Amino acid sequence: MKLTLPQAKTLQQIANIVSAQLVGDSALGDTPIYNVATIETAGPGSITFLANDKYKQYLATTRASAVILKEQYAALSPVNALVTSNPRLSLAKLLQFCNPDVVSTQIHPSAVIAESAKIGSNVRIGPGVVVGEECAVGDNTVLHANVTLYPRVKLGKGCLVHSGAVVGSDGFGFAVDNDGSWVKLPHMGGVQIGNNVEIGSNTTIDRGLLDNTCIGNNVIIDNLVQIAHNVTIGNSTAIAGCVGIAGSTTIGSGCLIGGAANISGHINICDGVQITGASSVHNSITKPGVYSSGLPARENSMWRRNVVRFMSLDAMAKRLRKVEKSLETS
Amino acid sequence: MKLTLPQAKTLQQIANIVSAQLVGDSALGDTPIYNVATIETAGPGSITFLANDKYKQYLATTRASAVILKEQYAALSPVNALVTSNPRLSLAKLLQFCNPDVVSTQIHPSAVIAESAKIGSNVRIGPGVVVGEECAVGDNTVLHANVTLYPRVKLGKGCLVHSGAVVGSDGFGFAVDNDGSWVKLPHMGGVQIGNNVEIGSNTTIDRGLLDNTCIGNNVIIDNLVQIAHNVTIGNSTAIAGCVGIAGSTTIGSGCLIGGAANISGHINICDGVQITGASSVHNSITKPGVYSSGLPARENSMWRRNVVRFMSLDAMAKRLRKVEKSLETS
Amino acid sequence: MKLTLPQAKTLQQIANIVSAQLVGDSALGDTPIYNVATIETAGPGSITFLANDKYKQYLATTRASAVILKEQYAALSPVNALVTSNPRLSLAKLLQFCNPDVVSTQIHPSAVIAESAKIGSNVRIGPGVVVGEECAVGDNTVLHANVTLYPRVKLGKGCLVHSGAVVGSDGFGFAVDNDGSWVKLPHMGGVQIGNNVEIGSNTTIDRGLLDNTCIGNNVIIDNLVQIAHNVTIGNSTAIAGCVGIAGSTTIGSGCLIGGAANISGHINICDGVQITGASSVHNSITKPGVYSSGLPARENSMWRRNVVRFMSLDAMAKRLRKVEKSLETS
Repeated sequence: MKLTLPQAKTLQQIANIVSAQLVGDSALGDTPIYNVATIETAGPGSITFLANDKYKQYLATTRASAVILKEQYAALSPVNALVTSNPRLSLAKLLQFCNPDVVSTQIHPSAVIAESAKIGSNVRIGPGVVVGEECAVGDNTVLHANVTLYPRVKLGKGCLVHSGAVVGSDGFGFAVDNDGSWVKLPHMGGVQIGNNVEIGSNTTIDRGLLDNTCIGNNVIIDNLVQIAHNVTIGNSTAIAGCVGIAGSTTIGSGCLIGGAANISGHINICDGVQITGASSVHNSITKPGVYSSGLPARENSMWRRNVVRFMSLDAMAKRLRKVEKSLETS
Repeated sequence: MKLTLPQAKTLQQIANIVSAQLVGDSALGDTPIYNVATIETAGPGSITFLANDKYKQYLATTRASAVILKEQYAALSPVNALVTSNPRLSLAKLLQFCNPDVVSTQIHPSAVIAESAKIGSNVRIGPGVVVGEECAVGDNTVLHANVTLYPRVKLGKGCLVHSGAVVGSDGFGFAVDNDGSWVKLPHMGGVQIGNNVEIGSNTTIDRGLLDNTCIGNNVIIDNLVQIAHNVTIGNSTAIAGCVGIAGSTTIGSGCLIGGAANISGHINICDGVQITGASSVHNSITKPGVYSSGLPARENSMWRRNVVRFMSLDAMAKRLRKVEKSLETS
Repeated sequence: MKLTLPQAKTLQQIANIVSAQLVGDSALGDTPIYNVATIETAGPGSITFLANDKYKQYLATTRASAVILKEQYAALSPVNALVTSNPRLSLAKLLQFCNPDVVSTQIHPSAVIAESAKIGSNVRIGPGVVVGEECAVGDNTVLHANVTLYPRVKLGKGCLVHSGAVVGSDGFGFAVDNDGSWVKLPHMGGVQIGNNVEIGSNTTIDRGLLDNTCIGNNVIIDNLVQIAHNVTIGNSTAIAGCVGIAGSTTIGSGCLIGGAANISGHINICDGVQITGASSVHNSITKPGVYSSGLPARENSMWRRNVVRFMSLDAMAKRLRKVEKSLETS
């Protein structure tokens, strides 16, 4: 697909928009650019980008008028190059230029906004959205269709909440009665969310029991993520799709939580931790670094043989110890 | 956060509400209590609680007027103690006192209720809720905003369904046609849900093929749980977030299914089984107890070395056997 | 439960509807059939089926008037048999006969359809559905209550989208700014979905960055599945519940992705691959076959012992190598 620019720009104007350096003959700066396209599909009049090394194979044959890329690839480009140390950031700037923000508050008539909710300026609220009592929605925040905010959810400025997300539902907390039945702990806290937070489609974030569930600034959360009651998440942490975080856990700033990972309750994860996809975190982590427990799929018959052995790994370790002892004493 | 009581109560009145024993000078019973707070944030006029041993470190320094706790901690409390064998149950009673139930049916005008649906008394139905034909919603049940009940879903009394939950969608059942394409099996059963069941946000429960999917009484289900067609779940079973249960599986009463666990189809899990978080259950379980398969995350470089070895575990076991044989014959 | 037929049919008429062979005395063809029921619950006047070998134990005692089954079971049937090589397909035909499609477009008045959206004929759109600008919904497609289609989502003919599904939300793509904060990449592509695709409740499918996310024909997707930006899925692939597929991954045709599996981004899975439940796919797969990494739950105390050993598996392998060397040199 080609994304047409709001109006044609010269290559030099594009370089300015994306904070990149036009390499080569300065006369090239007048080349007109009409659209943005991926490196495989771009044609004359397109600006494209090499933001992921996995796609460098396409550079030699691109038909774009120009490519945004790192300096190391500039010499390999068959077409004009816009050089930057961060092509992905340049691409973000270019797409944001193509997609200007709304400039006034727009609330769809089918949205249900409680009387006591405070709605900032330049807010966009889609159809079917529900905003509960005592909620706050900061300036420039967008709530897409069918988002539900329970009472006492405070969203900062510049947030983006995708469709079907539910923020502020009751935490999953119960007492056990004498007859073994569950007795509900009514959750009376709220949810406090910082500025520039993105929340994915059908993601769920529960309210706290008495205190708030807290999400810092610039946190990005993908689709179908579950964040339980009284969780705290530090600034600029990224949480990929299908992650579950159990109650009262604290996650630091600048963490990367890979897709489908799950994190137990009542633990602390320090700043700067990366959890790789599908890992299970059972214990607190006090040192920045990369942590994993996911196992990669292999051909099933081989996998099954290894699983059978895993199920007697303790016995195997004891047998090895016995062999070692026998050799020590022989 | 401090949760203000509907009206100030004396400590003795609180003791009565929460079925606990006021320990110490009976004159203390007149101490006025204005709010509930966590043990770290409570101040004078607050009642707090020690319901999870992980927080006992905060007891010595709490500034609350009184603490609900177990007898074993009473002597360590620097402030008045309300002693009970089940502080979590006392807390539930206290919060329920602060959060009285609605006393008449309230149906939001944007909810869409089918003509043939039966709605009990004191039912609360939020904005955007859809209740299909031949549904039943029992007395005192709450459907939060944007819940969808497909036709033929029967909910008992005192249930609580959180936003975005979908109950009664088609089971994932298909036949394979001669050309290899999928042919839909229309699902004609319904969903039968008992009394006092809680269903979390964006959880999905499918209808049965011909018979009903059945959820017992007092079952509690967290957010983003998937319960497939024709599953049966016994009374008072708890299912934490992000769990998936495949079709036609039966789970007994009093089971605890940990977060992000997944359970295969067409199997039976007996009463009293606990599945720890992120475990995969492939086979029927016939004996109560705790079952696991989740692996805890470790530092990535160490993890990767062990995974490489796992991939040749069968070969390793054979090598060990060979070593053992060589020692036996030497 | 017994599902009553729209009108009573003779056994021979049922045989014709389901493309099966009535075995036995041709006079049996006049037997009246009033309803469909499972093999355990069927009674006189019921047609039932044996479509899963796990239920063959119920055949000898069924009280149905007739059973749809494979030839190999015909001799074991105590009642009239309708023989077919594919009983599940016959069942699908029978249930589709009981559940005729709608014959005119029905759009619920609470649905919000953008002006530029194109809606085909015989389309059914439920309450609370949102269809964005430049969307297309093909003939005979059904959008159940509270589905959200973002702008530029194209759905083919005969699709079925269950409640709470969100199609076309932004991909989870960000650049990192110089200060370490996340900068959003606006996603400008769309989602292209083929014919006869089923999408489960609360499933999420993101739009592409510039190109489309593409789902082929006859793809079936269960509940709570996450499909990220720029994913491509081939024809007739089946994806069970709770699966997550990361961005820019390509999955071939005729694949079976088991429940709770997760698939990394930027990889290719060829046609005819089966991923068993709860497996993690980290790398491209170039050969059809069955692939796995899920571990089955075992009794917890045994499991924990084996996990401890797993955490030193690399050391164990080195110790085994040392033992082998010592024996080689002795």
